[in-house]
Amino acid sequence: MNPNELMLLTDFYEYTMSYAYFKENKHEEIGYFDMFVRKIPDGGGYLIANGLHRFIEFIQDFHFTDAQIDYLRSTGYFDEDFLTYLKNLKMDIDVWAVPEGTPVFANEPLVTIRGKLIQAQIVETILLVFINYSTLVTTKASRIVAASRGRAVLEFGSRRAHGIDAATEGARACYIAGARGTACTLAGQKYAVPVSGTVAHSYIQLHDSEYEAFLQYARVSPDNCVLLVDTYDTLHSGIPNAIRVAKEYLIPHGYRLKGIRIDSGDLAYLSKKARKMLDAEGLTDTQIVVSNSLDEFLIDDLIMQGARIDSFGVGENMITAKSTPVLGGVYKVCAHERDGVIIPKIKISGNVEKLTNPGFKKIVRFYDNDDGKAIGDVLALRDEVIDEHEYLLFDPQAPWKQKRIRNYTVRELQVPIFIGGQLVYDVPSTEQVKRYCQQQMDTLWDEVKRLRYPHRYYVDYSQTLYDLKQKLIEENTMKI
Amino acid sequence: MNPNELMLLTDFYEYTMSYAYFKENKHEEIGYFDMFVRKIPDGGGYLIANGLHRFIEFIQDFHFTDAQIDYLRSTGYFDEDFLTYLKNLKMDIDVWAVPEGTPVFANEPLVTIRGKLIQAQIVETILLVFINYSTLVTTKASRIVAASRGRAVLEFGSRRAHGIDAATEGARACYIAGARGTACTLAGQKYAVPVSGTVAHSYIQLHDSEYEAFLQYARVSPDNCVLLVDTYDTLHSGIPNAIRVAKEYLIPHGYRLKGIRIDSGDLAYLSKKARKMLDAEGLTDTQIVVSNSLDEFLIDDLIMQGARIDSFGVGENMITAKSTPVLGGVYKVCAHERDGVIIPKIKISGNVEKLTNPGFKKIVRFYDNDDGKAIGDVLALRDEVIDEHEYLLFDPQAPWKQKRIRNYTVRELQVPIFIGGQLVYDVPSTEQVKRYCQQQMDTLWDEVKRLRYPHRYYVDYSQTLYDLKQKLIEENTMKI
Repeated sequence: MNPNELMLLTDFYEYTMSYAYFKENKHEEIGYFDMFVRKIPDGGGYLIANGLHRFIEFIQDFHFTDAQIDYLRSTGYFDEDFLTYLKNLKMDIDVWAVPEGTPVFANEPLVTIRGKLIQAQIVETILLVFINYSTLVTTKASRIVAASRGRAVLEFGSRRAHGIDAATEGARACYIAGARGTACTLAGQKYAVPVSGTVAHSYIQLHDSEYEAFLQYARVSPDNCVLLVDTYDTLHSGIPNAIRVAKEYLIPHGYRLKGIRIDSGDLAYLSKKARKMLDAEGLTDTQIVVSNSLDEFLIDDLIMQGARIDSFGVGENMITAKSTPVLGGVYKVCAHERDGVIIPKIKISGNVEKLTNPGFKKIVRFYDNDDGKAIGDVLALRDEVIDEHEYLLFDPQAPWKQKRIRNYTVRELQVPIFIGGQLVYDVPSTEQVKRYCQQQMDTLWDEVKRLRYPHRYYVDYSQTLYDLKQKLIEENTMKI
Repeated sequence: MNPNELMLLTDFYEYTMSYAYFKENKHEEIGYFDMFVRKIPDGGGYLIANGLHRFIEFIQDFHFTDAQIDYLRSTGYFDEDFLTYLKNLKMDIDVWAVPEGTPVFANEPLVTIRGKLIQAQIVETILLVFINYSTLVTTKASRIVAASRGRAVLEFGSRRAHGIDAATEGARACYIAGARGTACTLAGQKYAVPVSGTVAHSYIQLHDSEYEAFLQYARVSPDNCVLLVDTYDTLHSGIPNAIRVAKEYLIPHGYRLKGIRIDSGDLAYLSKKARKMLDAEGLTDTQIVVSNSLDEFLIDDLIMQGARIDSFGVGENMITAKSTPVLGGVYKVCAHERDGVIIPKIKISGNVEKLTNPGFKKIVRFYDNDDGKAIGDVLALRDEVIDEHEYLLFDPQAPWKQKRIRNYTVRELQVPIFIGGQLVYDVPSTEQVKRYCQQQMDTLWDEVKRLRYPHRYYVDYSQTLYDLKQKLIEENTMKI
């Protein structure tokens, strides 16, 4: 897909707003915008940031074609001056972002954009689409991988994904989160995610018998022979036929039966029975792959019940994040720059959780030097100096709850991506993001990664940001 | 997006299966496959078929590029004969489908494909992706439009959609289902869906005051002036400022205040208060637009409580079909053709609802000649003749429940789309699909369209199909 075709993937209000800025001659003023998520889905303890790579591609290829300008003209909303301005528009925004694969938390700016108002505004929707979906699925997949406790997770959900993009980016997201591979061939080609597959029920049905189908498949793929055993009856037909093919064809020809796949029925019961039947015939190395509406909770329960499963094929519940299929990432103005002065902005609201964090900020993460674990994060203003030896954390909801820390390493999570529209970031490969994600997830305490009722990770404010926020709340409330 | 780039949007098992067919020399045998949905989401009474237009584009442009063949080679699974076969593959499948916009029901084949096994198999995932998502969102949007009882529904969900595809196709789907327009500019360009938009909270915040922001926007867009009133305080700041701009600027210049938009707070309470405040100032024609996590149930409740709302902007709950974000459409073999003879196939299963309907079938819909309403559907074998004057309907789950009907018009729902790979269908425009959908939805009784606990629409079997199914169940059960 050509990133430029996505130029009009904007909410139309970004153009009507931009047009107003243009007519008011405000369009060269500078704004700062934060993209952040207010709430972690599924009551989880963390998010994993993802989706930045496509935003980078998009900005690099940013320009309007004549056809796009013609379409905007056809809406009747805009004058020729504005359309000419758009046609000649060159992106010179600054972008800072948390690298893909980083565990992050509610209200942390995953992306911050500084730019002229029109530029910073018309990228809103495309940024949100890319980050929201990829972050959602990476986070969901990470939970499913955690529940599987070292057993393989394979991504099988393309057919239930919300379109091509969702299938491909979803497969990449699951791989980054720890899935071993995918059934999505396009994700294999595009992102080098390992692909795998065997047969569908139709293959079995289109042969004269299940045994004949297994035998034919074993002949064609003797070194990759995973047999689907639930077309007729898993225990009374599928597994006996698979064992027969292993003993009559594969083993005599120097191969092993790599695996069987069970796609229906009770997977705890069937996998335990299957394991016994296979072991009794000496097929102790034959793996048991299961699929059928799996998610983190069912996988957790299956393992607790002693299911003998080696690989989980996970489809719709992972690629659509079915339990909570929306990540509510938002894009909010946090500052206005006029004559070189940064004026912090806040959005107040009747709902406390909709209050925004004002100013041009950074996220600072403290790692304990003794064990390498993340202690907590602090949101601070960008120009604040963070003491490298001692820091006083306090809970912004309960400022009397304080904790003084020492012996830590400080890291700023956001890194520069574009400066003046120029890419200044070395974009990692999918494989690199996967490794980095694993390594970063290892810095979180297990308590934060628990599936149910996780420990809340600290995301605090610096004293300066806290004071600024209180001041702006007061000013804005008085304004009404 | 170039449809050809989607060639590898296949589950990899479609290639491993195809390879097996090729090596067994079964690949020129003919199979029949049905795409159908087992269950209607949200406990609803109907589905609206959609997504076919993209499958048509895909088949028309079907061919493998060298890069795609190179990728398949790189997986190490296939030999050169097979790769050469794929490279030279020309689609000559037959496709029948229910037109987009048609209300359909569980277990009805929305698409039936007849073709050589490899061809019919490698289109499985792409067909399912296109039909599943578009049908899901069209169905969801239809419920939301119904709940709105004639008030406008606008699609606002791009930023929470699962990618570009989902945003664009989702906006089209909502429009077909009865939404008046979308915020998604790309859907406007691609499908001529009407677009609209005004401003975000950031626009208000980036002016010196709310009043100043409203005034500036009114100057730029006096004939399209919808003001967002909840940035600071809807009742004490937003609406008074909007009224002031209407009276001080718009009306003196010959314009009206087109609308106000409320994006937070209790929408029933605020809209009633807003209506009174506007009416008291003579702004009786100013429309009230609301948004904020709406779905069919909240809209229904708001209207029941007397909310004074003219337009609903609906986002994430519609475009992701959040309450049930997966449509479980499947693609199952229903017949095998050998030497010109069609051999019906059935997939039996421990789960009764997973039993498939065998044979090359058609869907017949009976419309009552007195009132034009749909009486029920019958699944029949393709070559059955349906009596045009009298027909005995019976419930396949309870065959003694019978109903003899007369004075009806019979319609076959599936129409030929491709014959021998050639398009034989006049693809309608989005606008035509929307009109057709409205007209077809009018043929359903309101009882079937109820949001909660709808009446079950009859989908029966012909006696011939019923007998065939019983016979195959018996044969397949004996086989085990």
